[in-house]
Amino acid sequence: MSNLVKKSDAKRLHILETGSDLVLRKGFVGVGLQEILKNCGIPKGSFYHYFESKESFGCEIVKHYIHNYQLRLNELWAESPSSSSATQQSAYSKLINYFSLWINDPLTNYGWAEICLVVKLAAEVSDLSEDMRLIMAHGVERLIENISQLILLGKLDQSISVQGDAVINAQVIYQMWLGAALLSKLQKDKAPLHHALNATRQMLNNPIAASKR
Amino acid sequence: MSNLVKKSDAKRLHILETGSDLVLRKGFVGVGLQEILKNCGIPKGSFYHYFESKESFGCEIVKHYIHNYQLRLNELWAESPSSSSATQQSAYSKLINYFSLWINDPLTNYGWAEICLVVKLAAEVSDLSEDMRLIMAHGVERLIENISQLILLGKLDQSISVQGDAVINAQVIYQMWLGAALLSKLQKDKAPLHHALNATRQMLNNPIAASKR
Repeated sequence: MSNLVKKSDAKRLHILETGSDLVLRKGFVGVGLQEILKNCGIPKGSFYHYFESKESFGCEIVKHYIHNYQLRLNELWAESPSSSSATQQSAYSKLINYFSLWINDPLTNYGWAEICLVVKLAAEVSDLSEDMRLIMAHGVERLIENISQLILLGKLDQSISVQGDAVINAQVIYQMWLGAALLSKLQKDKAPLHHALNATRQMLNNPIAASKR
Repeated sequence: MSNLVKKSDAKRLHILETGSDLVLRKGFVGVGLQEILKNCGIPKGSFYHYFESKESFGCEIVKHYIHNYQLRLNELWAESPSSSSATQQSAYSKLINYFSLWINDPLTNYGWAEICLVVKLAAEVSDLSEDMRLIMAHGVERLIENISQLILLGKLDQSISVQGDAVINAQVIYQMWLGAALLSKLQKDKAPLHHALNATRQMLNNPIAASKR
């Protein structure tokens, strides 16, 4: 039984991941059910065994993406249990390291901006599916909260010195990156992301980095 | 003959404008040819009389949008011939007035962000049509140049005081607005646009406004 469950989970995951790749390249409306079935090598009945409709499949793709994103963030920002306060990364470094991954992730040689489902789908799903929109909007809200918590931590560890409210700063920084990623996609050029990284450094106004200049 | 040309131009324009409205709501792939024909009240042959293919129709929609956008910008930023230097708008005011229209345009009661074809289509066309992508990217580049020229003018009329290169500042401000518009669409909330307006004010660091505080 346990093996059956595992096999079923693996199949569902396979459909989700294959579907995500397709949707990331062609948009949600741009990918037909036939194409998903063909790429997954499954019959229609199998798809409907796991997902009620194409829309609910879309919702699961977005949830899956957000879940994995959060796992990667937790990993990236985790403190190793052995690290002393001297070797701990500052909140500023954590934020800059995170946004640098938008430009290039050495693990995959892709920038996160290139494979961001929010960049690719936000405009499309906002007018298409209220369910998909709400899941995505909630994921983005949580990410902005994460960024804002790091800004607050950075005020405490004195690596960040921003003016005004941490949540609003986090929102402005995130939306600047969202626009940079969209522009980078449109221009097929990473320059907007590099500009965003420099602007983020300035906005976080890191007094330690500044004093080293 | 002249009347015939006018009639033909008017029909082409009618197809373009009806198509633009549909595409703005449903995306480019999301709108089928049949839907365009039905909404325009024309037969298929008539469509192909004006446009070679759906893609070339898409290119014309983007060109039409960019052309109209530039006309509105010229109008917005024009100096009235009678205005003396005392009544002229500062470059700072021109930029802030322009971005305020992204939030709400009193003429239409829509914000420009809501009806922005770049926000709606950039992610979609970037992977779909190299021709549409290039036309849109060129339009955005021109808009960033316009913003950067106003930043330079603002340095001269002393209404703007930014650090660093005007073009890079213009790019960062534009991409922040692009992301704000996308986020505003996703969250169905104008708050991201208001945050972008405040951040723009700070980035342009207007010394006159600052001294009035």
